[in-house]
Amino acid sequence: MPLATIEWIGGLGGEVRLIDQTLLPTELKYISCSDTASIWQAIKRLSVRGAPAIGIAAAFGTVLGVRGSKASNFDDFSAEMKRATEYLGSSRPTAVNLFWALDRMTRIAQQHQALPVAQVKERLLEEALTIMEEDKAICRKIGSNGAELVADGATLLTHCNAGGLATADYGTALAVIFAAHEQGKNIHVFADETRPLLQGARLTTWELLQAGVDVTLICDNMAGLVMKQGKIDCVVVGADRIAANGDTANKIGTYSVAVLAKEHGIPFYVAAPVSTFDLALTSGAQIPIEERGAEEITCGFGKRIAPETVKTYCPAFDVTPAKYISAIITEQGIIRQPTEERIRATLGTA
Amino acid sequence: MPLATIEWIGGLGGEVRLIDQTLLPTELKYISCSDTASIWQAIKRLSVRGAPAIGIAAAFGTVLGVRGSKASNFDDFSAEMKRATEYLGSSRPTAVNLFWALDRMTRIAQQHQALPVAQVKERLLEEALTIMEEDKAICRKIGSNGAELVADGATLLTHCNAGGLATADYGTALAVIFAAHEQGKNIHVFADETRPLLQGARLTTWELLQAGVDVTLICDNMAGLVMKQGKIDCVVVGADRIAANGDTANKIGTYSVAVLAKEHGIPFYVAAPVSTFDLALTSGAQIPIEERGAEEITCGFGKRIAPETVKTYCPAFDVTPAKYISAIITEQGIIRQPTEERIRATLGTA
Repeated sequence: MPLATIEWIGGLGGEVRLIDQTLLPTELKYISCSDTASIWQAIKRLSVRGAPAIGIAAAFGTVLGVRGSKASNFDDFSAEMKRATEYLGSSRPTAVNLFWALDRMTRIAQQHQALPVAQVKERLLEEALTIMEEDKAICRKIGSNGAELVADGATLLTHCNAGGLATADYGTALAVIFAAHEQGKNIHVFADETRPLLQGARLTTWELLQAGVDVTLICDNMAGLVMKQGKIDCVVVGADRIAANGDTANKIGTYSVAVLAKEHGIPFYVAAPVSTFDLALTSGAQIPIEERGAEEITCGFGKRIAPETVKTYCPAFDVTPAKYISAIITEQGIIRQPTEERIRATLGTA
Repeated sequence: MPLATIEWIGGLGGEVRLIDQTLLPTELKYISCSDTASIWQAIKRLSVRGAPAIGIAAAFGTVLGVRGSKASNFDDFSAEMKRATEYLGSSRPTAVNLFWALDRMTRIAQQHQALPVAQVKERLLEEALTIMEEDKAICRKIGSNGAELVADGATLLTHCNAGGLATADYGTALAVIFAAHEQGKNIHVFADETRPLLQGARLTTWELLQAGVDVTLICDNMAGLVMKQGKIDCVVVGADRIAANGDTANKIGTYSVAVLAKEHGIPFYVAAPVSTFDLALTSGAQIPIEERGAEEITCGFGKRIAPETVKTYCPAFDVTPAKYISAIITEQGIIRQPTEERIRATLGTA
């Protein structure tokens, strides 16, 4: 990413600056957030989105929520911090990276509870910045690991946006594509537009064009046809939460793509950092799926496209069972034909 | 349909009046066509769409193209008529009903070539009106035949619009739904919005709401999830052309829905009049698939949703192989597990 998706400007008194992704690709505008509420809003309305980027935003949001604390002891400070993290955790339920980042911030505060509150605040900002820097390194590693699966001349299909805009700067699914491209492999990408919010049309094509990757935009319902026509060599998508057995929650429509890939004998890859795994969940059935407002379907693009009185169903995510997943690409290695045993072996929590 | 999708107003000097379906559901506006070019335009820009309705429009368009003929003999008249039908046939390539109607009009003219040209013109108008009236009866019969496949309490999924707006007044896929509803069966419908032109969101929901049928709108990429959740008992869609072996061209995305239905063990039904079969084609591979302009994807809804420079691929239809089709519902009966033999047996052309 030539542009920073999200960054912290200044010291503890500073602010978060992030790209308002709802306006891309026609408008590149930044939002400044200097309190927790504006971070919550930015996550809720998808100005910042993508599981890893949401985690980073939540970490920064925690700092914004406690930096003004007048608490003179850790217990009072901790109570204030708990309110901030619970509030941020209510913004979106599915991506586990949000909760992973909030838990990590909470642990850092606890580890430094012997320090004066002012120093705890500084440690929290350092930790949030560390999460962001680590994310950059993790994404590069996911890219180089995943690029091994991409042959020279291959055509990939991706769904939604798991790119630099979904992370600190390089992406997960798109990291695989960027890395293969940087290695000089001649690759082509089909991008599903990804209704209702069109992250594929708006964000993925924008990122790939900037990187000089050959990309063709299709509507979601064209994925089956392009697979049938033999145009696709593999599918690579991101993830919002992965259960211990490999079942993967990702943007709505991912499951349909996975079924179509299986029907056509096309490998289906998930690219995600280790922080996306939620080993407390034995299967994808336990992953909470966010439902969003009817307007995302009925008034997409600022224009009403359906009768006022029509009912809608608007799940933001779906769960792809592990049996459809050829491999999960992480920074710690590739987990082929994922099972709980193989996942725990790679994650080192067996 | 409480409103006529397409009708002929007046005698031979009259005009065609049709609903401009591009404006629904927010605006109900009629277009008057008094020459062939305006019919061609109406078909091309999808003001009138749906295979049977396109056939009716083409029949009327033929009348408009020859009624002003100054030819004094049949050969001259026939040459003028050929120019009109060839022009109308160039409007959209996939729906065979267009060519079926044009061929039928040509045959009628030939059958009456001994008559004075003025009387041939009258016969052509009569034939176009007959095609329209027959379509109404055919759709009712498709509805009553198909309703046998719909259990009380069932939930159906449909894609695009194969309703009254796609025919003279009752539809094909939606005829099945209307008939089941009129029989007092308590049914529910999920309607795919059907990108890029949103016929499901704009037209199908509008028709079903008018008829008092319980309908829920979803994005195309949610079909897999609702099937996985056990919400769907059967799928019913229309068709634009059916090859001799049962392979069926229909709106883009139909093939993906068929694959998903198969994966979930859900019956997948195609509802279409006999005029939709093209027995000259041995398989769906021979069906020409129309590709449309990039703007339908990139500027849907009047707003640019993708970068200016992005490539697109915009097929208007796809072909669902017969093996995915549980039954084809026609006015002449239900063809289960369609094969060429069963199709010819039902159509009486074995």
